[in-house]
Amino acid sequence: MANSDPIGIFDSGIGGLTVASSIVRRLPGESIVYLGDTARVPYGAKSPATVIRYARACVQKLMAYRVKALVVACNTASAYALHALQHDLAIPVVGVIEPGARRAVAVSRTGRIGVIATAGTVASGEYPAAIGDLAPEMRVLCRACPLFVPLVEEGWTEGELPELVARAYLSDLVKDAIDTLVLGCTHYPLLRETIQRVVGPDIAIVDSAESTAEVLVQLLEVADLLRPEGEPTERTFLVTDAPDGFASVGRRFFGGEIGRVQWVDLS
Amino acid sequence: MANSDPIGIFDSGIGGLTVASSIVRRLPGESIVYLGDTARVPYGAKSPATVIRYARACVQKLMAYRVKALVVACNTASAYALHALQHDLAIPVVGVIEPGARRAVAVSRTGRIGVIATAGTVASGEYPAAIGDLAPEMRVLCRACPLFVPLVEEGWTEGELPELVARAYLSDLVKDAIDTLVLGCTHYPLLRETIQRVVGPDIAIVDSAESTAEVLVQLLEVADLLRPEGEPTERTFLVTDAPDGFASVGRRFFGGEIGRVQWVDLS
Repeated sequence: MANSDPIGIFDSGIGGLTVASSIVRRLPGESIVYLGDTARVPYGAKSPATVIRYARACVQKLMAYRVKALVVACNTASAYALHALQHDLAIPVVGVIEPGARRAVAVSRTGRIGVIATAGTVASGEYPAAIGDLAPEMRVLCRACPLFVPLVEEGWTEGELPELVARAYLSDLVKDAIDTLVLGCTHYPLLRETIQRVVGPDIAIVDSAESTAEVLVQLLEVADLLRPEGEPTERTFLVTDAPDGFASVGRRFFGGEIGRVQWVDLS
Repeated sequence: MANSDPIGIFDSGIGGLTVASSIVRRLPGESIVYLGDTARVPYGAKSPATVIRYARACVQKLMAYRVKALVVACNTASAYALHALQHDLAIPVVGVIEPGARRAVAVSRTGRIGVIATAGTVASGEYPAAIGDLAPEMRVLCRACPLFVPLVEEGWTEGELPELVARAYLSDLVKDAIDTLVLGCTHYPLLRETIQRVVGPDIAIVDSAESTAEVLVQLLEVADLLRPEGEPTERTFLVTDAPDGFASVGRRFFGGEIGRVQWVDLS
C-alpha cells in the first residue's frame, strides 16, 4: 500500500537541511515536513537527558502532520535520542549515524576511519559503536570540530581561514593514516571541498546526509510506503524560534529555495 | 543596613564567569550565586521572546537563594530581558550593556565607537541605543563575531588562527576609524590581547565585564547593601545541563578555581 503522507525530518536547527536536500534529490515525489528546533540549537554540548527531552517534544509536533517515517537529521539527537524515539513510535525511524557508519565500513580499505563531529556526538561514542558493530576490527578516530558550524553559518567555506581551521582539526587524523573520513555533522557537507583539499585526494569522504537518504529510500521501498506517482508534493518547514532568516540562510544548506517558514510553539 | 545575602549572577552559560571574575576581584568579601543556563546556551541567535522566557525561569531559581542584587552577565539577555527583569524584581538589577556603553562614551575622544558581540546582541541594537542615550553625537559601528566564542572555548586565543579570524571581523572597523572597541560578549575578554594586536595600540578596548563590576560596586554602596566585613563568603555555581566539565573549562573564564558545580532543573 503506497502512502501519500509526508516524511518527517527533525533537526536541532538548520543543518539538517543538508539531509533534507539529499532526501528530496533521491525522492523528488515525496512530501516532507522539516522541523528545526532553532530555539534550542545547538544540541552538540547538551546532555543526553536534555537532548531526549527536546527530541520527544519536536517529534510529537511532527506526528501531528501524520508523517509516515521519521528521519532524525541531527547527529547529536541520533546519538542520544534515536533508541528512545524508535521505542516511542510505530513508524520507521532513521538516524544519521548508522547509515554513515555503514557507508564508511563499505568504503574503507585499511580499516582506519576518521569521524569529525560536534563535541556532543563525539562524546556519545555512537560512531565508534556503530562501526564496531559492523566491523569490530576497524579502528575509529574521532575529533570534535566546534568551529566548523559557525564557519559554515558565516559562509566562510572556501579560502585561507577555513583551510587553517580544517588543518588545525584534521592534521592529526591525516598523520594517523585514516583512509576514510565521515562528516558526522550536518553542517560539514558545505565544507566538503576544503576538507578534501586539506586531507588530500587519497582519503575518501563519507557524507552522512547522502547515506541517510539511501537508507530511507530502501526502508520506504521495503515497507511499500513510497508515494504514488504524480500526486502533488508539499514541503513544510517549521522552526521553534523566530522564522526570519531561516529561509535565506537555509537556502545554502538545502541547495534550493525554501518557501514559507512557520513558527511552532513547543513550550 | 549592610546585607550578607549573596549577589546573583545569571548567564546563558559559561561566559558570564568573566563578569563573576571581575565582581569577585572588586568585591572579594561578597558571596555570589552564579547560574549558567548551559542546557540552552547560546542565547545569541534566539528571539527576544524566547530569551525573556528563559531568563525569567533562571532568575526565579536565583531568587530562591535570596540574592540581594542581580547581575545579568549575558549580553543577549541584557539586550532582550533586562527591562522585563527590572520590572519583575524589587532588588537592583544590572545588565552588562549600559555599563559598557557608559565606559565607551567616557573613553572615546573621536566619538567613533566599535562594538563586537554575538549576532543576537548586534541585532538587538541595544549598544547603539545605550550609547545614543548618553551621547547622541557619537557614531556606533557594530559587528557580530560568531567564531570568537568557539575559538575561546577551544582555548585558541593566541596565534595565527585567532589573529586571522580577528582580522576578518575587525579590519572594516579599523578602516572605519573607530578609536574605542567594546567587547560586547562575555567570552571576548579572553581574546583581548589578540584583538588589541589586530586593531593596534591606538584603539582603546572596553571590557563590559569590568565596567559592570564597577557599576555594581557603586549600586551596592549607594543602597548600603555591601556585606559586613569579616563574614565568611560562599561561592555557589549552578548549571542547567550536566555539570561535568564546567569547572575545568570555567577556570579559564573565572581566572581561578571553581568548586562544586550543581545541576538545577528548570524544566
